[in-house]
Amino acid sequence: MLNMLAVKDIVIRALEEDLGGGDVTSAALFGPEDLGRAEIIARREGVVAGLPVAAVVFEAAPPGCRLVPLVEEGSRVVPGQTVALVEGPLLGILGGERVALNFLQRLSGIASLTARYVERVKPYKARICDTRKTAPGLRCLDKYAVRVGGGTNHRFNLADAVLLKDNHLRAAGGIRRAVEKVRRRVPLTAKIEVEVENLDQVAEALEAGVDLIMLDNMSLKDMSEAVAMIRGRALVEASGGISLETVAGVAATGVDFISVGALTHSPAALDFTLELV
Amino acid sequence: MLNMLAVKDIVIRALEEDLGGGDVTSAALFGPEDLGRAEIIARREGVVAGLPVAAVVFEAAPPGCRLVPLVEEGSRVVPGQTVALVEGPLLGILGGERVALNFLQRLSGIASLTARYVERVKPYKARICDTRKTAPGLRCLDKYAVRVGGGTNHRFNLADAVLLKDNHLRAAGGIRRAVEKVRRRVPLTAKIEVEVENLDQVAEALEAGVDLIMLDNMSLKDMSEAVAMIRGRALVEASGGISLETVAGVAATGVDFISVGALTHSPAALDFTLELV
Amino acid sequence: MLNMLAVKDIVIRALEEDLGGGDVTSAALFGPEDLGRAEIIARREGVVAGLPVAAVVFEAAPPGCRLVPLVEEGSRVVPGQTVALVEGPLLGILGGERVALNFLQRLSGIASLTARYVERVKPYKARICDTRKTAPGLRCLDKYAVRVGGGTNHRFNLADAVLLKDNHLRAAGGIRRAVEKVRRRVPLTAKIEVEVENLDQVAEALEAGVDLIMLDNMSLKDMSEAVAMIRGRALVEASGGISLETVAGVAATGVDFISVGALTHSPAALDFTLELV
Amino acid sequence: MLNMLAVKDIVIRALEEDLGGGDVTSAALFGPEDLGRAEIIARREGVVAGLPVAAVVFEAAPPGCRLVPLVEEGSRVVPGQTVALVEGPLLGILGGERVALNFLQRLSGIASLTARYVERVKPYKARICDTRKTAPGLRCLDKYAVRVGGGTNHRFNLADAVLLKDNHLRAAGGIRRAVEKVRRRVPLTAKIEVEVENLDQVAEALEAGVDLIMLDNMSLKDMSEAVAMIRGRALVEASGGISLETVAGVAATGVDFISVGALTHSPAALDFTLELV
Amino acid sequence: MLNMLAVKDIVIRALEEDLGGGDVTSAALFGPEDLGRAEIIARREGVVAGLPVAAVVFEAAPPGCRLVPLVEEGSRVVPGQTVALVEGPLLGILGGERVALNFLQRLSGIASLTARYVERVKPYKARICDTRKTAPGLRCLDKYAVRVGGGTNHRFNLADAVLLKDNHLRAAGGIRRAVEKVRRRVPLTAKIEVEVENLDQVAEALEAGVDLIMLDNMSLKDMSEAVAMIRGRALVEASGGISLETVAGVAATGVDFISVGALTHSPAALDFTLELV
Amino acid sequence: MLNMLAVKDIVIRALEEDLGGGDVTSAALFGPEDLGRAEIIARREGVVAGLPVAAVVFEAAPPGCRLVPLVEEGSRVVPGQTVALVEGPLLGILGGERVALNFLQRLSGIASLTARYVERVKPYKARICDTRKTAPGLRCLDKYAVRVGGGTNHRFNLADAVLLKDNHLRAAGGIRRAVEKVRRRVPLTAKIEVEVENLDQVAEALEAGVDLIMLDNMSLKDMSEAVAMIRGRALVEASGGISLETVAGVAATGVDFISVGALTHSPAALDFTLELV
Repeated sequence: MLNMLAVKDIVIRALEEDLGGGDVTSAALFGPEDLGRAEIIARREGVVAGLPVAAVVFEAAPPGCRLVPLVEEGSRVVPGQTVALVEGPLLGILGGERVALNFLQRLSGIASLTARYVERVKPYKARICDTRKTAPGLRCLDKYAVRVGGGTNHRFNLADAVLLKDNHLRAAGGIRRAVEKVRRRVPLTAKIEVEVENLDQVAEALEAGVDLIMLDNMSLKDMSEAVAMIRGRALVEASGGISLETVAGVAATGVDFISVGALTHSPAALDFTLELV
Repeated sequence: MLNMLAVKDIVIRALEEDLGGGDVTSAALFGPEDLGRAEIIARREGVVAGLPVAAVVFEAAPPGCRLVPLVEEGSRVVPGQTVALVEGPLLGILGGERVALNFLQRLSGIASLTARYVERVKPYKARICDTRKTAPGLRCLDKYAVRVGGGTNHRFNLADAVLLKDNHLRAAGGIRRAVEKVRRRVPLTAKIEVEVENLDQVAEALEAGVDLIMLDNMSLKDMSEAVAMIRGRALVEASGGISLETVAGVAATGVDFISVGALTHSPAALDFTLELV
Repeated sequence: MLNMLAVKDIVIRALEEDLGGGDVTSAALFGPEDLGRAEIIARREGVVAGLPVAAVVFEAAPPGCRLVPLVEEGSRVVPGQTVALVEGPLLGILGGERVALNFLQRLSGIASLTARYVERVKPYKARICDTRKTAPGLRCLDKYAVRVGGGTNHRFNLADAVLLKDNHLRAAGGIRRAVEKVRRRVPLTAKIEVEVENLDQVAEALEAGVDLIMLDNMSLKDMSEAVAMIRGRALVEASGGISLETVAGVAATGVDFISVGALTHSPAALDFTLELV
Repeated sequence: MLNMLAVKDIVIRALEEDLGGGDVTSAALFGPEDLGRAEIIARREGVVAGLPVAAVVFEAAPPGCRLVPLVEEGSRVVPGQTVALVEGPLLGILGGERVALNFLQRLSGIASLTARYVERVKPYKARICDTRKTAPGLRCLDKYAVRVGGGTNHRFNLADAVLLKDNHLRAAGGIRRAVEKVRRRVPLTAKIEVEVENLDQVAEALEAGVDLIMLDNMSLKDMSEAVAMIRGRALVEASGGISLETVAGVAATGVDFISVGALTHSPAALDFTLELV
Repeated sequence: MLNMLAVKDIVIRALEEDLGGGDVTSAALFGPEDLGRAEIIARREGVVAGLPVAAVVFEAAPPGCRLVPLVEEGSRVVPGQTVALVEGPLLGILGGERVALNFLQRLSGIASLTARYVERVKPYKARICDTRKTAPGLRCLDKYAVRVGGGTNHRFNLADAVLLKDNHLRAAGGIRRAVEKVRRRVPLTAKIEVEVENLDQVAEALEAGVDLIMLDNMSLKDMSEAVAMIRGRALVEASGGISLETVAGVAATGVDFISVGALTHSPAALDFTLELV
Repeated sequence: MLNMLAVKDIVIRALEEDLGGGDVTSAALFGPEDLGRAEIIARREGVVAGLPVAAVVFEAAPPGCRLVPLVEEGSRVVPGQTVALVEGPLLGILGGERVALNFLQRLSGIASLTARYVERVKPYKARICDTRKTAPGLRCLDKYAVRVGGGTNHRFNLADAVLLKDNHLRAAGGIRRAVEKVRRRVPLTAKIEVEVENLDQVAEALEAGVDLIMLDNMSLKDMSEAVAMIRGRALVEASGGISLETVAGVAATGVDFISVGALTHSPAALDFTLELV
């Protein structure tokens, strides 16, 4: 579920950032022969995400040590719960500690926030999805955490799918012409999505045969009407400033997807601590 | 103030993440000869940080365009305020848009949160500082944003300074012995800080002649007493779960620095939008 | 049309491969002050592709020189035709020569071969597309050359779209179950394609609501029947050992796309030479 | 025989290109616990090259699997012959499949083409060699495949040896002066080769004491005469548009080496398929 | 004591430099099945440093082999003494030989030179420290070797600590103003050092409350006086053209540290050889 | 003469090492608008090498500044002589200072030492050449400096040429068999050199037709005899512990090349300083 090819590269960069010049404190006190054992403990309630990333961190922090997960990735944890053990040379445990926790706290924060949105829309068919508003350099991890939290991913990058926005539509002379132009030029595997602001545009998009219609900042009433117009001929995504308070109402309109930028641009860290035992 | 050597590398990685496979939408609609002009507009009140980073993004997003800041880095902005213009080929403006905004929203979020803490402790000599709880790969930017918001930086990495924590002290047999051992081995330019949990340890640290004493999760009363004991013979840092609500009380104890992990591990993004004009 | 972010990286690697240790011959004979002017001349008939890549090569080959294209990218050229001038220090012209020509000969070879396929299916709606059978490390350029030659791109990598093959279907227990499972887990922007070998599978795929159906090594008769069954409810791709001799027949069945691995796995180089003038 | 230091880097880049964003199809269907076993089968007759490279691909494609070669590198294979087994997690087998086959089909294509040239010149002492007309970024592999096919390598890059061409000779004022100038400046380990177009130049090159003389596009008669003039005092290389049809005639002139650009610029892929068993 | 995260990267670069194109000699003579065993033998008297680095070289030189140290890092060795064994494939032993010895000869050279300085100041409290005058790209190793030789490290880079020199002082309007300005802006963990040239500046620096005072090219008499003035209120470093001949005299003045650029800018290599047994 | 493709990469690494975390001192005192002008002044007599490298450093040290050389690369300089000016933002001048000087002092040290050896052998035809005993990561620069000092380069890496040593000869069963085996397998452009220890081996090497014969640690008498035996049929290189004292005697034996490891493994830095004016 998590693409390890990219993860190793990200982890090495993060370790270089923190440990690239060595850990002067621990290196002055311990040798590679000093072994230890530590617990990673949750301090808040939430959904844990990032244990496989933390495991890569501890393997890669010289001289390397080993993380043994005690809960499954995606589990709900409570304050005080030990989520993993770390075993091996103290130099590895202490050298990897902060980097591992930084991954864990961010990814668990994203998964936990996603889970709260997912919970709110459970009665409806709508699924919660993310955006490209991620921390630079961490997109594949941020989006992975959304999946761990029960969400769905929107496109990963600008090559993954077509998304025609305002600016594109205006420049191209409307939805139909933009769609025609784009369809001839993009890979045959690329879905075409259009961002619309009113029901006229919905009609236009339907006629152009797009795959996805994004209802941008529409009223609940217009969203319901749009869903009725579309009748399954395209997938429908609601977007624009949707919060935990408003998300259920949006889901009730019958849209297929609700995208929430906050999942990845404003997650509060889920606090974890590492304690030697 | 911002180290551009590292910034370029981070920006290129972020662009590769979003734009590495091209922008199929814009490339199907526009050519390099289609020019445009856009505004970056704040949607919330806060302190803007990251304009020089956004400028590098737009330069580097092929075929490149130009950001002209309209406010100074570190300015306080209000919703609706245009903070910068972007000019040049549409392909560059649209190709760099999301990455530039992702940097801007995170760094401004950090600066804005820092500024709120700084505001609270204005009556006191205490200064707000950060921790190593940053987004992996973005530490130099996260810490830059703290400075923009009026904060001070704690150490950047494990080589920058000695910080003796619980684990180190126990393993080394107490503060004095740990400090002695460390002092003989670390670079002469490295400050030595000790994390203490009670007044006895404060006394021990003072005796060992450390440069910095971190009061970890102490009561306000104990912190005041510690400050009194130390009398300027070491710098004093308060640490541990300090919030906007409690920070003024901590500052009133007379400590020199208050470190706040939330500045960089849980900042809410400051919302910006880019609009073609 | 060509994503320059990736191109620069590929060009630098290619230059390091050829010029990383310097050009001992030219360096022994010329200094940076020795200027020259050269023509790049086609030796065979075909479609030129790669001029912008060659331009990057000459800029980047120290001390750098300048390529001025004399024909448009995608033009048909004849033997003896000068396609570009190169001007500047001899050290740059001679240092970049081989690398620039290597890009040009491969990309023009691909574009020329693609153009021949495209020509054959002109009377039909079918479009020629590529595969992932590209030279390792050069995929974005190989696929760019297909577009220059008039072809369409299939997915760029394993994350771009779902393609359910034999192995997947068998393991998942048939088309319907595979599609259901996949649809719940992949990004909402990912199209789903199924590779089918007979008309029963076509029916199953249609029922499962896939976006694309790949007819793998089917007879012309079955292909026609499949097209009739599908009636526009999914895009249809023909695949499997299709050659210049057979491609028109396949197109006549009414399929939407014909994928041809040979475009990128077996293109003959289009010969170019660089001559100082 | 194959330098693994460079190979790993090339393989990782190729995997990132195809698998960098993950394999959305397989990841939705399989977990790391789903094991499989596959055969790599030749579909055409030829010389297999690249098995050690494919092995590195499968090791490196997360979560990693294992290739077991069933034939020796450089073996002649027939259609339908299984050349290797691949065993391990399905995610690794399917994730590495295309990249591994892309290396195998190109390198085996080059080795097979080389072997056909080598076969033609068997009665003569002449050896077939390659040029620098390789796929950008893959030179060490392309040239390795030439060796596997029975060919010899010409220089790898512009630092490996001196090759004085037209442009150099003209600028330096003739062969003798160019050779003198060069000899004083290049590493003592660098051989000096001169490209000549007529017998006068052959004489001049001999007198200058070069190590290698390249007969460029000469008639068979002139080549024979050149060989007679040189009498072993320098190695002789024939070059310029030599094909399978003409190569034996060239070899009959007595030259030592015949360089063939087509080996690496226009090899047809040797088709392989991977089938789960 | 040696940070392996950075070491691996440096070793790979060094191997690519020497072995990136393969070892044509050994590859023509040996296969991966040819095993060997070699000794690394010191040819001069000195302090050995770099064995762990050499071990990484041999592991990483394809197909890899194993170094077994016979002496402890930092040992004093005599001519003819075997310091390590190397075992495994001949291709690995011969492929890694030169790179491993290059590290070993430089680092042991630095450690040996440092040890000679350290020896001279043994009767005094002064400790020998290094500077930033290191071989570009090898700073962490050069400084590691200084530690192995018994020296102390000065700052590693421009971010580690503040060092106010002439240029800074003049531009900022004197020591006090420079220190004040700097103290408000740098990380709270950064020590502040000032370079002074006379006793007036020593007084000014003391008053400004700096952590370290560097006495630059002062007479022994002034140094003694400076030490007397400072009385432990700041650490004192002597600097400027100090040689093996003069270092004891400097130490006798009572300074805390003596920095010696020659340790890393002009160490003579300690000669080692590798011999197959 | 200096290959800039590699230089830029080396310079960036060196800057990251020193300036990667910023220059906290200068950044606290100066802004990008503070301009300055500095001189780089030689403090010792010698041959200057590395000015073009230093120029790249100052360009690349953010925000960048400009070096103007006042003497030609390779000039002999005297103490106190200004060799270059540096102009631009103070942040660039001070940020690049140490890295630029580190390159300059090492490369000038190598060039100066080489020049002394070259001077000693002036009466003879012998040329001074280097070895692969260079600082890891800096080989292309170290060898460039040897050329600047008037020396010649031996092979750059293990792929450049064949050098058969003891170990190879023993394993292959003597010189003739080793040469035969190697000649069939290495690139046709690779020269073959054999290291010999006595006159019998010289005879054997001559018979095998090698290009170069390295006389390893032979007596002057044997060297003279070897030269007489060889009579120009191969180039002759003397090697093994040759010093400034002994080099003229070796040259007098009539060898073509004398290789000196000390040029690059033990050069004393040539001291330079940068002073703001």
